[in-house]
Amino acid sequence: MKLNELADEAGVSLSTVSKVLNGRSDVAAATRSRVESILDRHGYQRRTGPVGRSTLVELVFPDLDTVWAMEIIRGVENVARENGLSVVVTESGTRHSPAPDWIAGVLRRRPVGVVLVFSDLAEESKVQLRSRAIPFVVVDPAGDPAPDVPSVGSANWSGGLQATRHLIELGHSRIAAITGPDDMMCSHARLDGFRSAMNTAGLPVDESLVAYGDFHVDGGRENARAMLSAPDRPTAIFAGSDLQALGVLDAARSLGIAVPAELSVVGYDDLQLAQWSSPALTTVHQPLTRMAEEAARIVISLAAAEPESTPRMDLATRLVVRDSTAPVGGAPV
Amino acid sequence: MKLNELADEAGVSLSTVSKVLNGRSDVAAATRSRVESILDRHGYQRRTGPVGRSTLVELVFPDLDTVWAMEIIRGVENVARENGLSVVVTESGTRHSPAPDWIAGVLRRRPVGVVLVFSDLAEESKVQLRSRAIPFVVVDPAGDPAPDVPSVGSANWSGGLQATRHLIELGHSRIAAITGPDDMMCSHARLDGFRSAMNTAGLPVDESLVAYGDFHVDGGRENARAMLSAPDRPTAIFAGSDLQALGVLDAARSLGIAVPAELSVVGYDDLQLAQWSSPALTTVHQPLTRMAEEAARIVISLAAAEPESTPRMDLATRLVVRDSTAPVGGAPV
Repeated sequence: MKLNELADEAGVSLSTVSKVLNGRSDVAAATRSRVESILDRHGYQRRTGPVGRSTLVELVFPDLDTVWAMEIIRGVENVARENGLSVVVTESGTRHSPAPDWIAGVLRRRPVGVVLVFSDLAEESKVQLRSRAIPFVVVDPAGDPAPDVPSVGSANWSGGLQATRHLIELGHSRIAAITGPDDMMCSHARLDGFRSAMNTAGLPVDESLVAYGDFHVDGGRENARAMLSAPDRPTAIFAGSDLQALGVLDAARSLGIAVPAELSVVGYDDLQLAQWSSPALTTVHQPLTRMAEEAARIVISLAAAEPESTPRMDLATRLVVRDSTAPVGGAPV
Repeated sequence: MKLNELADEAGVSLSTVSKVLNGRSDVAAATRSRVESILDRHGYQRRTGPVGRSTLVELVFPDLDTVWAMEIIRGVENVARENGLSVVVTESGTRHSPAPDWIAGVLRRRPVGVVLVFSDLAEESKVQLRSRAIPFVVVDPAGDPAPDVPSVGSANWSGGLQATRHLIELGHSRIAAITGPDDMMCSHARLDGFRSAMNTAGLPVDESLVAYGDFHVDGGRENARAMLSAPDRPTAIFAGSDLQALGVLDAARSLGIAVPAELSVVGYDDLQLAQWSSPALTTVHQPLTRMAEEAARIVISLAAAEPESTPRMDLATRLVVRDSTAPVGGAPV
């Protein structure tokens, strides 16, 4: 379909269609939305010549203030560089969905594609990106991507299972789990992995030793302090993030409980700081850099060709054993 | 000067001049260099109309794998967003100076300006950026910027002084200092601040308690282990970075020395992780995010007007007291 036919169908001028395509702000919202939906319905493909081709990949965080932002940036940057592209890093400023003015910027910059971290894209934004043939992929550590969006996640359930099996193999049976917020699917997946490992080993799960909290240090510290002050305290705690695990280490230190001699601790994420805590954390490696690399590869290949179906993948997690875990009642391994 | 006059002076075609200006690679190196130097000599200013104006700020790291990269990205992103600009993050891939192919990318992208972290720019790259009127500023935590380059640093000497004064005020006199590598000026500045605080208080500096090392955890751990295993061990250690301080905490824990009851520890940088260690670190706040914000502001204002002189500034450092320091021989404060 040619643009002038499209303009006729929308009942607007050719210059208005062009303004919409270029993300200009001087178009009435209703008009924009009518043109968008016609563009989308006809599967309009922006033509890009060698001169007009952008060399940017857009990476959008709801909030740059996350401990693992750097691991994601590094991954996208690795793949962009391999492909002669540069990475634009944007903080969208809202926790779950990019701010509306973000999309106007993307339409102006016309990147090869967009990698979104941990964000739900508004239906309107999806339509706008699709109508310009700007592909997007979600890097999704939370484990609950929308079904119609290409995404790269990781195996949360399996991570919970591995962490708990490791503790069981060390002889622990009174094992606590502190997981993430109740409204994030990854919290449930990791906890379900914990329960399956316990059940398979014939061990009961004491519900007083299961807690939900935010993924930060305080969440780990407060929950651990309560559990470790109770009469029949756990000999091991599986924490839902490395930050929570740091909180558990701090609670143990302030209560005079030695890690790992008297308490084993497993974290989750394997951020750089997991190597630097004292003792160094045994933790589940979430391959954030690899997830970001895969997302960048997908977005670049989507830019080159129309996909058959929505690409989705979960990368494997693996346990990294360091110094915060030991046999129950025993000395460090 | 018009471009055709410039082409005549260089003895090349107008299209060759245009290729050089646009960072194209199909120009012989000798030709490129001749055109560059004529552009530079005549102070050629690229004309940018409202249409051709880029909306990008380029942020270049020698290596994204530094713990404080995120704090810098956040600062540049804050200021870019205020100005309706986006940030391109590039890893130049060499430790001290951006790789040669990086400059070609910048010339193609034509950013409003370039913020370089901790890099020495090759003379040739300076000429290339200047001839296109692309301003650049160095964010320089190492404290040794080239004199002809706009830069934003921080007060390293004063940081060392404040950290040491705090320990002296707590009654410590046997104080060790572990600083950074011998070939970085910030290591010397912080150590000189330490010496001045000791001298001013009439305290001798025991040279067996002064060590140089890299800024990583291992550097802190090994030096602290040696110092703390000696007969007359220090009661306080000033570490040159938060990572070194984490290493000191680990050495103390493995030797059964309680922090802060038996050993006070001060770090440097005030990275996020300083709040998460156990105990939380007393440390010198290096305003990395503010340094990046200032650098971005300078680069944007340089893009708008020619400066009178080379802008240079050092931002203040300040001590943040947390839980890793206490009065000598006493309980936590």
